[in-house]
Amino acid sequence: MINVGIIGGAGYTAGELLRILIWHPEVKIAFVQSTSHAGQPIANVHKDLLGDTDLIFAKADYTLVDLIFICSGHGKTKAFLEQNELPENLKIIDLSTDYRPKNNDKGFIYGLPELNKVSIAKADKIANPGCFASCIELGILPLAASEKLQEEIHVNAITGSTGAGQNPTTTSHFSWKNNNVAVYKAFTHQHLAEITESILQLQPEYEKAINFIPVRGNFSRGIMATIYTECNMTLEEAKELYQNYYSEHSFVSISDSIPDVKQVVNTNKCVLYLEKHGNKLMIISVIDNLLKGASGQAVQNMNVMFGLNEKEGLGLKPIGF
Amino acid sequence: MINVGIIGGAGYTAGELLRILIWHPEVKIAFVQSTSHAGQPIANVHKDLLGDTDLIFAKADYTLVDLIFICSGHGKTKAFLEQNELPENLKIIDLSTDYRPKNNDKGFIYGLPELNKVSIAKADKIANPGCFASCIELGILPLAASEKLQEEIHVNAITGSTGAGQNPTTTSHFSWKNNNVAVYKAFTHQHLAEITESILQLQPEYEKAINFIPVRGNFSRGIMATIYTECNMTLEEAKELYQNYYSEHSFVSISDSIPDVKQVVNTNKCVLYLEKHGNKLMIISVIDNLLKGASGQAVQNMNVMFGLNEKEGLGLKPIGF
Amino acid sequence: MINVGIIGGAGYTAGELLRILIWHPEVKIAFVQSTSHAGQPIANVHKDLLGDTDLIFAKADYTLVDLIFICSGHGKTKAFLEQNELPENLKIIDLSTDYRPKNNDKGFIYGLPELNKVSIAKADKIANPGCFASCIELGILPLAASEKLQEEIHVNAITGSTGAGQNPTTTSHFSWKNNNVAVYKAFTHQHLAEITESILQLQPEYEKAINFIPVRGNFSRGIMATIYTECNMTLEEAKELYQNYYSEHSFVSISDSIPDVKQVVNTNKCVLYLEKHGNKLMIISVIDNLLKGASGQAVQNMNVMFGLNEKEGLGLKPIGF
Amino acid sequence: MINVGIIGGAGYTAGELLRILIWHPEVKIAFVQSTSHAGQPIANVHKDLLGDTDLIFAKADYTLVDLIFICSGHGKTKAFLEQNELPENLKIIDLSTDYRPKNNDKGFIYGLPELNKVSIAKADKIANPGCFASCIELGILPLAASEKLQEEIHVNAITGSTGAGQNPTTTSHFSWKNNNVAVYKAFTHQHLAEITESILQLQPEYEKAINFIPVRGNFSRGIMATIYTECNMTLEEAKELYQNYYSEHSFVSISDSIPDVKQVVNTNKCVLYLEKHGNKLMIISVIDNLLKGASGQAVQNMNVMFGLNEKEGLGLKPIGF
Repeated sequence: MINVGIIGGAGYTAGELLRILIWHPEVKIAFVQSTSHAGQPIANVHKDLLGDTDLIFAKADYTLVDLIFICSGHGKTKAFLEQNELPENLKIIDLSTDYRPKNNDKGFIYGLPELNKVSIAKADKIANPGCFASCIELGILPLAASEKLQEEIHVNAITGSTGAGQNPTTTSHFSWKNNNVAVYKAFTHQHLAEITESILQLQPEYEKAINFIPVRGNFSRGIMATIYTECNMTLEEAKELYQNYYSEHSFVSISDSIPDVKQVVNTNKCVLYLEKHGNKLMIISVIDNLLKGASGQAVQNMNVMFGLNEKEGLGLKPIGF
Repeated sequence: MINVGIIGGAGYTAGELLRILIWHPEVKIAFVQSTSHAGQPIANVHKDLLGDTDLIFAKADYTLVDLIFICSGHGKTKAFLEQNELPENLKIIDLSTDYRPKNNDKGFIYGLPELNKVSIAKADKIANPGCFASCIELGILPLAASEKLQEEIHVNAITGSTGAGQNPTTTSHFSWKNNNVAVYKAFTHQHLAEITESILQLQPEYEKAINFIPVRGNFSRGIMATIYTECNMTLEEAKELYQNYYSEHSFVSISDSIPDVKQVVNTNKCVLYLEKHGNKLMIISVIDNLLKGASGQAVQNMNVMFGLNEKEGLGLKPIGF
Repeated sequence: MINVGIIGGAGYTAGELLRILIWHPEVKIAFVQSTSHAGQPIANVHKDLLGDTDLIFAKADYTLVDLIFICSGHGKTKAFLEQNELPENLKIIDLSTDYRPKNNDKGFIYGLPELNKVSIAKADKIANPGCFASCIELGILPLAASEKLQEEIHVNAITGSTGAGQNPTTTSHFSWKNNNVAVYKAFTHQHLAEITESILQLQPEYEKAINFIPVRGNFSRGIMATIYTECNMTLEEAKELYQNYYSEHSFVSISDSIPDVKQVVNTNKCVLYLEKHGNKLMIISVIDNLLKGASGQAVQNMNVMFGLNEKEGLGLKPIGF
Repeated sequence: MINVGIIGGAGYTAGELLRILIWHPEVKIAFVQSTSHAGQPIANVHKDLLGDTDLIFAKADYTLVDLIFICSGHGKTKAFLEQNELPENLKIIDLSTDYRPKNNDKGFIYGLPELNKVSIAKADKIANPGCFASCIELGILPLAASEKLQEEIHVNAITGSTGAGQNPTTTSHFSWKNNNVAVYKAFTHQHLAEITESILQLQPEYEKAINFIPVRGNFSRGIMATIYTECNMTLEEAKELYQNYYSEHSFVSISDSIPDVKQVVNTNKCVLYLEKHGNKLMIISVIDNLLKGASGQAVQNMNVMFGLNEKEGLGLKPIGF
């Protein structure tokens, strides 16, 4: 059994981790830390866990655990690591952006198993990728791996509301968001940095622009990215390239029909779909932003780090509707 | 032309008033007061008015207007009236709960035209009814008017998110509310007071319970109330009673088929529908909470107060979908 | 291992069964029968199963299985049993209404484990309850079991769209249903029959009306029933009664805070909540209509029939959002 | 007064026309033709019109009208014109695709007032533009008019469900569409033809690709198009170009903040917004697909054809929420 602790247990990604981990056959949850809710049952905050667990938010005790998941939010992991003395052999999976850049000073490995599975298996510290980044990278990496990227890449990706976290704001207000969509951070989204790093890891000389327009969607979970670029392969060649690239990766499927977001909601899967139009190859990529885009991927990384089958505990019932 | 001012111009009900009044043929908007947004174009806040108006949030100047709409929020009108010296002949329509009780000390008339049209026509001060109250009273008043209420009344009513105002909270958060419903304030909702007063105005000896369960719906606009009580009339008699009661009221229709909420969204209408099952008469009542339940009714009251056709400026295109 | 077959594999309840059974540790799916889709991969129809299974829709072969689930739709099971000769020892769980009445001529047991667990454990043929019926009965049965029902029961229940099946109709059209609610079959819904039978099984002399208003909600999954009736217990006594009644039942929890539908979506759970107002006891009951209201309960019944823990394979990750 | 008739009165675009025309001060609706619903009140079909009109679906009588709107659906107008002998001076506005190509054999003028207002004013027959086409063309035409298009254009546009009409299908089913998005007809959508023709009318030598990815959105009304292309103007120059191009057009506004779809829902407006990133100019364009994308634009065309102010009858209350 892997003994795990969760830091920052009251937020969305921690809740999603708990929904997975309480059923994971190889995991024991030793503590769920929360400053704001210490002493309360976790089912008071993550109400859908009522009846599933009697866990209480508690203080962290690093002597009890093999691994901690840090769910404190972007910018807070650095401070956490400075302020806390952690056991040397304690493994860490951080869900924030803080240590995603390759040249980080703590030796964190970028935790996209479909890119870095070998390094992850040997790593002690994992920086879990961003949700948009996961969805988009999975759609592009096979091209980069065979150095097929030549021209600019065009990406439009629409995300569910949970991607923005649980803080209530003007744009998370139901009255605004219901039946509504809007663009934000066009061409400047912070995930462009990690997407670019991952592409360059595989095709270092690629230097064209990645044009990325993120959209706020009026649904709770999921991301659909639509990607296209010029490509001199036929559709069949491209499909074969993608099939080969993902042949050893359990969570990525190539679909023969156009996917929709709900096809992957409440699963750790990524579904890809390809079309060729003239000289453009279009790739559609869909994931659940809280699973393959966050907590599901964190568990997948844990599985890889501890030598388990990467699917362990991740055979999740899809929502379907 | 009626010169009007709006106090508290940045909230939901004020926005809705503006959407109506800028097209009202007999109204000139003299000022839209907002403490928080003074000096800004109103289209910066009510963004759907871009291109329709160049109005700027400004200070109130009561010498310019015949009528003010007070949209400051519940509990704030009393303070406003204490702190401001208003011209004697200035008419007021208040959208808060503050002066809805009959025995209020300022002479406000409860502004449900289908109950009090004659008094409203002579009034200077109107307390605009609550949204749930409007929907439910319109479903019950014909029975009370002919003293047909005998036993308890059972009401379940589901409301759109705009009924809770624009303040972002846990239960207005899209991630929570999307695809979700929940009960709140069962048997204790504050609108029960005005509903009871209106019933007793017509059938003073009625003393049975009104069991009211309010539900938060996952839509933006609209209320559907389902009401039933024992009744010794046939369905035909009941329909005739309702038809007669509303024969002089432009905004209430009796439907022969089951209504849905969207049938009235973006209109000032109330659609009623009746069924008889055993000794129970069931009435379904649907309105748009921001229109017949708030700002549309406020304009209807203004029309009645100033001797206009009550429909003036309220020939609104329904949303349909 | 239990070898199971599914009859009518292309519909909603069959899809939901498959989403559960492919991960159930004690089940082998021997065939998934579909007349309309024979020969196709089931992931072509239930697209969210892409990557999870390579099963193909096939003909039924009753010699391969211990149990069949019949998902053909209401009214079709009778015909199916007449037209097919089944092995004597083949167990059946039927998800239609056909054999829910107690006095059915084939010996089907009404499969609500919280009412009939002992009989289910010995049964060969189970009639799986209706979705509304499950939700409402779980809210009322503890009162009936202690003969506390005295007066009429008032029920309003709102259901997700999947309750109406996959046939595209006017009222399943997104343009109509989105942001909309409407009543249907008020006081006459077909589930009243089984609700009444279950209550009478526990409190045979109860003879008051059950007033039931069903509502079409604008969400995909879930039912929320709001129930009240006169009751001479205190709130504490009522809570204790409910806690005791469900103490041996894994899927029902009594909540201390108002539940919402999403709290149980994608789980087999039922969450109950009680309030007392004057002499009225109000019970809120929420379930996922496709799980505790259909396919999840079918699996729970299978577990009970085969002597497994009733939770086996039903430790499902909630959707949360 | 303009006497108008509607052909094909039971569909979405006809319903939307009726919602506008019954309040239009210069219009008398002489007949609303429907083969399927002849003899029924139109409020039986377009239920939100209950209480607003007593019109009955009837046979067409062309001697009564100055203008007909043809709302029969794509491909049916050609057959209609062959099978019916119409008075010579009868004006026609056709909402189908049939006569949108410039070189049509009946002299239909493409009815985008912001492109062809002078020709429309003199025309007898108008082909009303497509919804996507209207939204996208309004975002691009100022560039084409000053011959600023140089490189490929990249367009992603998401549409509400009403764009697909009222026929119930798999992808219009609420259970599928709710909380879901999906791409369709990428790079091949039929509106590309009219978009290209309109661009070439203004910048005839432009010959680069227009890459267009349409997306089915999970909302009822509205289209948001995100468009970008290389452009050597500064943002300020581009804004000025757009302001100038639309200075005489009442329904198009240039916004200083990022627009969302609901900003224009239930109006005939188009809101545009510009950003510059490197050498890319991004334009966001939002309209209501049933209004500026269909029936609202048809009324605008009627106004122009009959010498009225183009805004007459189109001062519509926005939905806001």
